[in-house]
Amino acid sequence: MDKAQQDALKKAAGIEAAKLIENGMIAGLGTGSTVRFLVDELGRRVKEEGLQFTGVTTSRRTQEQAEGYGIKIVDIDDVDHIDITIDGADEVDKNFNGIKGGGAALLWEKIVATNSNKIVWIVDESKVVDTIGKFPLPVEVIPFGAGHVIKKFEAKGYKPTLRLDADGKPVRTDENNYVVDLHLERIDHPQELAEDLITTVGVVEHGLFLNMVDKVIVGDPDGPRVLLNPNK
Amino acid sequence: MDKAQQDALKKAAGIEAAKLIENGMIAGLGTGSTVRFLVDELGRRVKEEGLQFTGVTTSRRTQEQAEGYGIKIVDIDDVDHIDITIDGADEVDKNFNGIKGGGAALLWEKIVATNSNKIVWIVDESKVVDTIGKFPLPVEVIPFGAGHVIKKFEAKGYKPTLRLDADGKPVRTDENNYVVDLHLERIDHPQELAEDLITTVGVVEHGLFLNMVDKVIVGDPDGPRVLLNPNK
Repeated sequence: MDKAQQDALKKAAGIEAAKLIENGMIAGLGTGSTVRFLVDELGRRVKEEGLQFTGVTTSRRTQEQAEGYGIKIVDIDDVDHIDITIDGADEVDKNFNGIKGGGAALLWEKIVATNSNKIVWIVDESKVVDTIGKFPLPVEVIPFGAGHVIKKFEAKGYKPTLRLDADGKPVRTDENNYVVDLHLERIDHPQELAEDLITTVGVVEHGLFLNMVDKVIVGDPDGPRVLLNPNK
Repeated sequence: MDKAQQDALKKAAGIEAAKLIENGMIAGLGTGSTVRFLVDELGRRVKEEGLQFTGVTTSRRTQEQAEGYGIKIVDIDDVDHIDITIDGADEVDKNFNGIKGGGAALLWEKIVATNSNKIVWIVDESKVVDTIGKFPLPVEVIPFGAGHVIKKFEAKGYKPTLRLDADGKPVRTDENNYVVDLHLERIDHPQELAEDLITTVGVVEHGLFLNMVDKVIVGDPDGPRVLLNPNK
């Protein structure tokens, strides 16, 4: 599948998900290439259909895009709940465990998701896998002492790499932290791994989103396909 | 006990602990009023005795004080280990469980402690308690969504308050996060609480330091007293 085809599937999933936003809702808006299509479609609905809703964004990038369409964006602490959050994912398996954070926004994404009544992910079919882990797992790490955290991950066989930008400098998240990617190839025990990572001093958050999503909308050449999490 | 008496005990503990630093060591230096006395004494030893060691500091405050004495301070990621870390504590119980973070430096303190071969705390006798929790437990929280974290803590009966500065604005840590203090009065199950806090999305780190310390030097009117952790 080439990029144009993949973009067409992402766009179809984004348009399908945009139908879930209703007048008056408070909606969490994720980050990433698929969410861009969602926000474009929401912008169209605001302009052409008079849709009115309030957004909470998971990154400055999405905030800027949404505000460009005149969508009202508020701070997460200015709302007492979020009705629904629509976000992308880098991988999702049949147990509705996923990896997020390719776009380095995993911390805000997880905070928004945790405070949402309903979570929907939009992905193209290449993101649906049997076992997560082929996609490098992002871990957000405090810069102070990050080298020691990386050494610990190496000793555990997690194959960590510090994510660098085009200039060879460490990527900084919106919270000014580093991102360490773990090249695990497959994650057979995600719950144990999540516990080990979050209790490592210096780790702020990790990209494992385990059994959090309610619904996955998959962009498929035959049209968007919906996977419902039976455990939610 | 008045403040002058308490300061005399802190100073005695600091001077006693300074004896543990030997030529060539890499030493972690904590933060707080007792550590100030330690660093003063180390500065005296550098000047009068020619002591040479390398320091890793847990806050900008301590770094500035130590560098003022000509002590060589390096970044934690420039050393492959730390021989010994000397720090204060806000409370410590008979099981060598402690609370730290009154000074809002708990994150760097915990990172330094985690990478130290030996940990020593210096306290005055008022900090030694039967059960920790009378001292409000500091929790470092990401500002984004902090209001929701506080609400969750309230629902659990943790009696949280956002720490404010003299102008009524949220205190910011060296990593630009908020500090939420939990007014628990007593913590009977510190391990369970630690697990609950660290797995709360939005929490970066908390002030429970459980069975991490090797030795506690207590400033006592009869002279410094040493408590050795039998489990280390």
